Amino acid sequence: MPKLWNETIDTHRAAVRETTLDATAALVAEHGLLSVTMSQIAERTGIGRATLYKYFPDMEAILLAWHERQINRHLDHLAGVREHAGTTRLEAVLEAYALHLHEIPRHADGEIAAFLHRGEHMAHAHQRMHAMIRDLLIEGIKTGEVRGDIAPDELATYCRHALAAARNLPSKAAVRRLVNVTIAGLRPLR
Amino acid sequence: MPKLWNETIDTHRAAVRETTLDATAALVAEHGLLSVTMSQIAERTGIGRATLYKYFPDMEAILLAWHERQINRHLDHLAGVREHAGTTRLEAVLEAYALHLHEIPRHADGEIAAFLHRGEHMAHAHQRMHAMIRDLLIEGIKTGEVRGDIAPDELATYCRHALAAARNLPSKAAVRRLVNVTIAGLRPLR
Repeated sequence: MPKLWNETIDTHRAAVRETTLDATAALVAEHGLLSVTMSQIAERTGIGRATLYKYFPDMEAILLAWHERQINRHLDHLAGVREHAGTTRLEAVLEAYALHLHEIPRHADGEIAAFLHRGEHMAHAHQRMHAMIRDLLIEGIKTGEVRGDIAPDELATYCRHALAAARNLPSKAAVRRLVNVTIAGLRPLR
Repeated sequence: MPKLWNETIDTHRAAVRETTLDATAALVAEHGLLSVTMSQIAERTGIGRATLYKYFPDMEAILLAWHERQINRHLDHLAGVREHAGTTRLEAVLEAYALHLHEIPRHADGEIAAFLHRGEHMAHAHQRMHAMIRDLLIEGIKTGEVRGDIAPDELATYCRHALAAARNLPSKAAVRRLVNVTIAGLRPLR
């Protein structure tokens, strides 16, 4: 087949996939994670059920793909924050990360959330997040903004865990205070 | 029945329970969480299987009771650390807590761990741990050791999450550095 034809097929496949995941996102927002079905997605997208099953063997595969896309979009967003935040990159990225954790809907909790978070894509996402924070810490150590007596990898592990508290805080103001306290822990000793 | 008789029965029941949980602890240590059976426990303790089933309907009930006892013992230990640490109570308790998290065996991970951690006793344990840390923070705010511009409840949430990183650190030395960074975050602003 000519290259152009392959590209057309690839584009078509990507479009079916994106359309499916868009419909999944809307249905999850409307009805929650547990009640979305393949039939609803077929109906919403106009993609035939037979075609849908060629792309995704079951609802779990769709939810995993949807979750992976969500997480990657969020990481891309954080990378954008990093590029545009100027001298306060570390603070800007940690705050955007914590606010994101804070805003994840509560319906995402429970067994289905546990299933999604066991997905392989989460290990990659954690690694990517960890590397992003670590690189900002290395930068901060160079400028003297971050203490240099502890390995940046350990400090990144501290940051990720401390900021996970954002899930359990009652307001954005409380999340900003958490970021403030977490960053205070990173400062060079007096 | 006279009161004394009731007390004798209660003592007997407590003894059967404790013996069962001791055997469970030993078997978990030997074979891991997943492979302990009611038969093994009956054999190890000499308690008849019929009696055992009167106390615990299934293996999950035994594991939940064993886990609850483990957690409560650990919290009692931390309360002891608090009583005997003198002026560095906050540091001493946070370090003992973080080292404990670090030392939880890796075989406790996975689905059975997720099941145990969904148990009601964990909500109580988290509350007790949270209250212990919060009270130490209130004390620290009074002595000027801890910043007073953020609610102690929020600071306690920060501490618990930051110290959870101890699970993923490679050494006790790294855990001590984590405690050091976490406490640095609590200090009054310069």
